[in-house]
Amino acid sequence: MSSQFGLALHVSLFGQSHGTAVGAVIDGFPAGLLIDQGMLSMEMNRRRPGSSALTTSRNEEDKVEFLSGVFRERTTGQPICLIIRSKDMHSEDYGEILDCVRPSHADYTGHIRYYGFEDFRGGGSFSGRLTAPLVAAGELCRQWLSLQGVRIESHIRRIGNVWDTSLESVQENDDLSGLRTEQIPVIDKNVAALMKQEVAECAGRGDSVGGMIEGRIVGLPAGLGAPFFDSVESELSHLFFSVPGVKGVSFGSGFSLSGMHGSEANDCFRYDGNRIVTVTNHSGGINGGITNGMPVLYTCAIRPTPSIGKEQKTVSLRTHQETVFSIKGRHDPCIVIRAAAVMDAMTAIGILDLWKERAACVHS
Amino acid sequence: MSSQFGLALHVSLFGQSHGTAVGAVIDGFPAGLLIDQGMLSMEMNRRRPGSSALTTSRNEEDKVEFLSGVFRERTTGQPICLIIRSKDMHSEDYGEILDCVRPSHADYTGHIRYYGFEDFRGGGSFSGRLTAPLVAAGELCRQWLSLQGVRIESHIRRIGNVWDTSLESVQENDDLSGLRTEQIPVIDKNVAALMKQEVAECAGRGDSVGGMIEGRIVGLPAGLGAPFFDSVESELSHLFFSVPGVKGVSFGSGFSLSGMHGSEANDCFRYDGNRIVTVTNHSGGINGGITNGMPVLYTCAIRPTPSIGKEQKTVSLRTHQETVFSIKGRHDPCIVIRAAAVMDAMTAIGILDLWKERAACVHS
Amino acid sequence: MSSQFGLALHVSLFGQSHGTAVGAVIDGFPAGLLIDQGMLSMEMNRRRPGSSALTTSRNEEDKVEFLSGVFRERTTGQPICLIIRSKDMHSEDYGEILDCVRPSHADYTGHIRYYGFEDFRGGGSFSGRLTAPLVAAGELCRQWLSLQGVRIESHIRRIGNVWDTSLESVQENDDLSGLRTEQIPVIDKNVAALMKQEVAECAGRGDSVGGMIEGRIVGLPAGLGAPFFDSVESELSHLFFSVPGVKGVSFGSGFSLSGMHGSEANDCFRYDGNRIVTVTNHSGGINGGITNGMPVLYTCAIRPTPSIGKEQKTVSLRTHQETVFSIKGRHDPCIVIRAAAVMDAMTAIGILDLWKERAACVHS
Amino acid sequence: MSSQFGLALHVSLFGQSHGTAVGAVIDGFPAGLLIDQGMLSMEMNRRRPGSSALTTSRNEEDKVEFLSGVFRERTTGQPICLIIRSKDMHSEDYGEILDCVRPSHADYTGHIRYYGFEDFRGGGSFSGRLTAPLVAAGELCRQWLSLQGVRIESHIRRIGNVWDTSLESVQENDDLSGLRTEQIPVIDKNVAALMKQEVAECAGRGDSVGGMIEGRIVGLPAGLGAPFFDSVESELSHLFFSVPGVKGVSFGSGFSLSGMHGSEANDCFRYDGNRIVTVTNHSGGINGGITNGMPVLYTCAIRPTPSIGKEQKTVSLRTHQETVFSIKGRHDPCIVIRAAAVMDAMTAIGILDLWKERAACVHS
Repeated sequence: MSSQFGLALHVSLFGQSHGTAVGAVIDGFPAGLLIDQGMLSMEMNRRRPGSSALTTSRNEEDKVEFLSGVFRERTTGQPICLIIRSKDMHSEDYGEILDCVRPSHADYTGHIRYYGFEDFRGGGSFSGRLTAPLVAAGELCRQWLSLQGVRIESHIRRIGNVWDTSLESVQENDDLSGLRTEQIPVIDKNVAALMKQEVAECAGRGDSVGGMIEGRIVGLPAGLGAPFFDSVESELSHLFFSVPGVKGVSFGSGFSLSGMHGSEANDCFRYDGNRIVTVTNHSGGINGGITNGMPVLYTCAIRPTPSIGKEQKTVSLRTHQETVFSIKGRHDPCIVIRAAAVMDAMTAIGILDLWKERAACVHS
Repeated sequence: MSSQFGLALHVSLFGQSHGTAVGAVIDGFPAGLLIDQGMLSMEMNRRRPGSSALTTSRNEEDKVEFLSGVFRERTTGQPICLIIRSKDMHSEDYGEILDCVRPSHADYTGHIRYYGFEDFRGGGSFSGRLTAPLVAAGELCRQWLSLQGVRIESHIRRIGNVWDTSLESVQENDDLSGLRTEQIPVIDKNVAALMKQEVAECAGRGDSVGGMIEGRIVGLPAGLGAPFFDSVESELSHLFFSVPGVKGVSFGSGFSLSGMHGSEANDCFRYDGNRIVTVTNHSGGINGGITNGMPVLYTCAIRPTPSIGKEQKTVSLRTHQETVFSIKGRHDPCIVIRAAAVMDAMTAIGILDLWKERAACVHS
Repeated sequence: MSSQFGLALHVSLFGQSHGTAVGAVIDGFPAGLLIDQGMLSMEMNRRRPGSSALTTSRNEEDKVEFLSGVFRERTTGQPICLIIRSKDMHSEDYGEILDCVRPSHADYTGHIRYYGFEDFRGGGSFSGRLTAPLVAAGELCRQWLSLQGVRIESHIRRIGNVWDTSLESVQENDDLSGLRTEQIPVIDKNVAALMKQEVAECAGRGDSVGGMIEGRIVGLPAGLGAPFFDSVESELSHLFFSVPGVKGVSFGSGFSLSGMHGSEANDCFRYDGNRIVTVTNHSGGINGGITNGMPVLYTCAIRPTPSIGKEQKTVSLRTHQETVFSIKGRHDPCIVIRAAAVMDAMTAIGILDLWKERAACVHS
Repeated sequence: MSSQFGLALHVSLFGQSHGTAVGAVIDGFPAGLLIDQGMLSMEMNRRRPGSSALTTSRNEEDKVEFLSGVFRERTTGQPICLIIRSKDMHSEDYGEILDCVRPSHADYTGHIRYYGFEDFRGGGSFSGRLTAPLVAAGELCRQWLSLQGVRIESHIRRIGNVWDTSLESVQENDDLSGLRTEQIPVIDKNVAALMKQEVAECAGRGDSVGGMIEGRIVGLPAGLGAPFFDSVESELSHLFFSVPGVKGVSFGSGFSLSGMHGSEANDCFRYDGNRIVTVTNHSGGINGGITNGMPVLYTCAIRPTPSIGKEQKTVSLRTHQETVFSIKGRHDPCIVIRAAAVMDAMTAIGILDLWKERAACVHS
């Protein structure tokens, strides 16, 4: 299932960077959602390149068109096909055949995978542009979940050497939805300027820089997910690692847990009125692969984008020789800035899928 | 698909800690493998508790029985059902109903998920015991892959504050298969004693400790995996996070990449004879979700086992009151020691699944 | 997915005729069902060969063992592995290699499919014996559905030239569950003796005979299934055609509809109190792939079993020559008699799968 | 998976009759096929209504646009999204809410399934118009299979009381591809006029008529498919019953087998040079769910289209009363004429899926 995902909500992704359109089919989306087009546009803009000097200058409008599954502003319960047309392509920049494979890009692996028949222009079907339909699909899921009281929130945890405060210190009831409207979504407002500076410096050197997104899901019922292959961690990590550039994923206290003792790491239960809650949340709201009703916490590590202006060594598939080249044209010095919208979308897709899987658990 | 996994190789897992047997059905396994029973037993022993003073004393024999799919010592290509009988159960230790839910265990979430009908004895279907059939299934996959020249290797990277050397410093051609026969599989032999000491100290305090497994896959062809949902990272992380206790997964240089620049992180291509290789391997052998022929590198963070002898606060599902209790009976102070065999198995399952998916890529 | 089925209820089948056991894993079965072991045994006996002079003399006990997923007599919601051990094997009857391929059996195709590694004894994994775990799995589904008011009923519509009355003439409220206890389940009691005679005559000649099963599902809510790939017809036919020997499947008035006009075939709607019903039921309770609340009606055509005592022409895979041979040993002159239990089971599996898929249709 | 299908080739269907476009995503299609646009157009025209006086007058152009997965005229191996825009919609014909539910249409069941949120105009997502993208997807599959020497052929076996000769009497080597260019694809040319007359008479009375399509697949290797859930019959019937109006499916001698003896029905093996073939082909090229290298034969029964001009009784969802009404506007007196193209397409999708599944059967 090369471009398909889901247990009970099925997403099928398609498109190439320089094709006519990128899009997705979402099968099994709940009927009856009145789509908030304003929120959808806002999310598309959060992900969209060219929205600030800090991101690539590719000028895409990223308007979402629904080819099916929507009737009189509401989802019908039938398959939703949404597309985003490509408008700003410079396909003439590309020669007859793929020549120099860009380091840490998918040029070489795509060439092998698709036997040389791949659309190699601008990253083809590996392009970050395919996250646009994922953001649209995820935003629909988020809107539906929002009506059930679920909040999906994230911030930039790190860019290069600049760190934001961790979500572990943010109260469950603090609403972070305001971060959606900020160019640099951070909890500690003081770090925004430092992050911008870090990115600008990299851009100035023709280099790029990595970072981390930290997010959470608040308001989930206990009981989503299942042990082993359908654990919440498996579901979400599967989606997170689908996003180009993500090379690490953790839940709760994550890698820190590997240095802890059980007596520190265990989250004791207590009552909060009638609700069973945990005193701490090192497990990130997940026990045995299943939500326990506490916020689900995750962190994703994102590599620096491999598109850099600096000269690099590589090989030519045309001449079969080693060579040196520089990547021309547009590139984004730090994809982390735009990634928060993508991770929110992936989160929403995963959670709605588990929500539906849970609803199918009929019993006696 | 609560207990099912796979694109082209399908694994269906079943069993409870105190049931008759745990097992798995593997559908789509290649025909014709002559099973090496000795290697299979060795892998089962690596995972088996009670094999040393450092692990839980539960005395399981863990003999693998094949109910189907094997004929005259060879796999038939038909579904393989393998089971491991449970022999050492003390079911009388368990009362009529689930009472105190153990912190950071799945008692509470399982109770919600299964509406109170779950087999709650000894962790039920959340038990680490279900990794036994996964090790068996994975070892079959590993044996098949081994015939294709693929090596799957791992070591304990960390227990508590004791660290082993990283695989990043080990040459591709260095064969680490000898680690399979060691009680504490580490690259730097000096750290084994330190790790044992760390675990023994925890055990002495009635506590537990976490750690990390680092592993690699050597000898893979370029071209396995696909962009987005079927990325190698998605496939493997899905499996790794299925293993109880895993709370973080990374590939290549992982979380370190989030602090790096593109010019440092990019893996330049060069020729090694006719083979295209990379100079560095920060990407962990994966570009755009697809193997590039370099070793695939991963790290998993494992939490300290939540079963500790120390007194803990929790709630009683019987009285609906807060209470204090201690976990009695068997428990493992450090599941990391036994986890290397499990992670090897999950790796092998994931890679064979992608191998088959790749084989289905017919073309013109 | 060679031996797997399901949208939301997943069945994984395993076993070979002469292996240790045949069985199935059912993943996603509802929690809390108190299993009626008496009914389960009765269904197993309905399918079991050797229960009368009309069927093969193989003496299997067909006792269902639950290896997992059942706790204190109830289903837990966790994966159920059920097995039926094989006791009456004469494996010594089989030589080193597969020689003469039996006409219209799977000897030849299985040999190609599994590259000569297949367990060829007694039909191997193609054996009708694999319907035993399907009957067990289906009976669990039927028991759960029965608690929701769903009735699954079937009868032998035809054996050779002897026909029973059609279900089209049976009222919706007439309970046909009594047919389960009859050796020859027919509506018109007079035809039972004629069918026995037909089978006995065939058996006497060393020949076999085909027939039809007709069945229905009463008490379904409207709204199960979906247009196109998840139509009720697609779901059920997929399962029915999985049963060895089934070569035709139809719904409602089936093939007769191909000779009818719309004005005859259309089922007009009317009210029955507050319930919307149809005046006729040519569509077999399914419009646009979705149940409309009327009884779902189906018919399956079953070929004569290819195991006959008469001499037949075939080829030898050993000598690569054409040859003549006779099938020795046990065979069933008419598998139709035992097929009603199997079709009921398949029906129950399909309907519970669609029921769960429907339950996952959350909406606004 | 409401609108998804496939083991190794994944098709995701979307669209509504009166939406912007209908389409499909095909994931896993082989890389490198040079698309024959002329053949594709011809197939689209075969299915297209309005191409003759015998079919509905809806004037669709049915031009296939590829949004992704095609580069320089060839398939890339990446997901193909193809769409067909809707041009000739009269949405103003439809009121605010669904009122009278048309007998034997999906108006009522769709209303229940989608909780009243469905796009009810012109059949919505139940419309036969969704077979247009299936024909396009299937034609790509057929073109690829054709390069491997596989021929997919079909004819109208019956319309009302007019029957064509059966394919059972046509030699394997007789190429029937010429039937693709005929308005009424029949083997016996004399029956074409009779069929036209049958349809014209029905149309004159404001009625409709049913029929049968019979088809075959020639040139398949032995070894496609698997026992039980992945039998060739299960795979193809699942697809055939997805087509609106199909109410019966059979393979080989089909329902006739239910009246036959084993000695008549068995297909004895013989050698044809080095190739193992069968003397007869009652099994329709399938033994134990697996192709045996002989032509696969199938028959589908298609009900008369429920859209008729005659007055019919039904209920009003608006007034909750019984009522009488007539269907206005376009309708097709006999969908069988256009169905051959659809059944060919479904056949090609199923076979390519099984072909890929087979290719994944790596072995030792």
